[in-house]
Amino acid sequence: MKPWKTNRRRDLLDCGKFLRVEAHEVELPDGTVIPDWPWVISPDFINVVAITTKDRYLFFRQTKYAIEGTTIAPVGGYLEPGEDPLETAKRELQEETGYQSADWTPLGAYPADANRGCGTGHFFLARGCTHVGGEVADDLEEQELLRLSRGEVEAALDSGEIKVMSWVACVAMGLRA
Amino acid sequence: MKPWKTNRRRDLLDCGKFLRVEAHEVELPDGTVIPDWPWVISPDFINVVAITTKDRYLFFRQTKYAIEGTTIAPVGGYLEPGEDPLETAKRELQEETGYQSADWTPLGAYPADANRGCGTGHFFLARGCTHVGGEVADDLEEQELLRLSRGEVEAALDSGEIKVMSWVACVAMGLRA
Repeated sequence: MKPWKTNRRRDLLDCGKFLRVEAHEVELPDGTVIPDWPWVISPDFINVVAITTKDRYLFFRQTKYAIEGTTIAPVGGYLEPGEDPLETAKRELQEETGYQSADWTPLGAYPADANRGCGTGHFFLARGCTHVGGEVADDLEEQELLRLSRGEVEAALDSGEIKVMSWVACVAMGLRA
Repeated sequence: MKPWKTNRRRDLLDCGKFLRVEAHEVELPDGTVIPDWPWVISPDFINVVAITTKDRYLFFRQTKYAIEGTTIAPVGGYLEPGEDPLETAKRELQEETGYQSADWTPLGAYPADANRGCGTGHFFLARGCTHVGGEVADDLEEQELLRLSRGEVEAALDSGEIKVMSWVACVAMGLRA
């Protein structure tokens, strides 16, 4: 099986660091050319399944613009330009929860959209997290830190209380690891 | 916790049925107004974990524009305008594999992006699939039908051979159900 080739790119929309859209001229293996394939560029991001030394899973109850009501959410955030995903994960864990871990396992990296890109999510499992303080409340959303048992995480996942696709993927992979 | 309010929407980009972008004027619970919050509209889609009466899991080896090399992929496709997600799932299973099922379990519906939308994925488990024929080869990508054991699906998931976020979420949830 042969991949599609990108012959040309042109800018369609620039909303700054959170969203740009390009049109790609794409060539299929059989020579067919698609002149304007929309391609969405948003920052890569991380999510972390963080487990404390006391076997509590660190999650948040929070609101998000794309969902109704509140949701249960793992640690997460966007990569800064040039930042390594693992460094982002360590930084976000510290900033959002005040916890640190010395035991990190990668859970994979996946584009949000198979056709348009829309940023890649880098997922991690952080075991043995300990509280060191230094939380930073700089996100726009209100959020409340939860310390859940494994059973509570499984129930939240299976009942639909974890409401965003990347979080479901990360949490489900974290529970498997 | 209070949700964010959408005060106004304006069109930023219209690429047809696969992608539109809006700017939303968003009001936070504390009264702060964000004048231009980018919001991405792409079609909702379905993915299906389909299991035959012989306990084989129906997957594809295929290429996708957003990924390198080949990937293992579940049944999937976009909703037609006005189509119910379960109807899409039944249609795509039939068109892509020639199989049908009378035993459908919903696995949740999740926006691809917590901040920007980017379409909602509706996930399903289809048990007891039987081959009735009528496959339609209308997708742009080459794809090869695979009949995997549960162990092979678990290995593909855990080794990163399932390379797209929505597929990881759907397959992991299907294996839990």
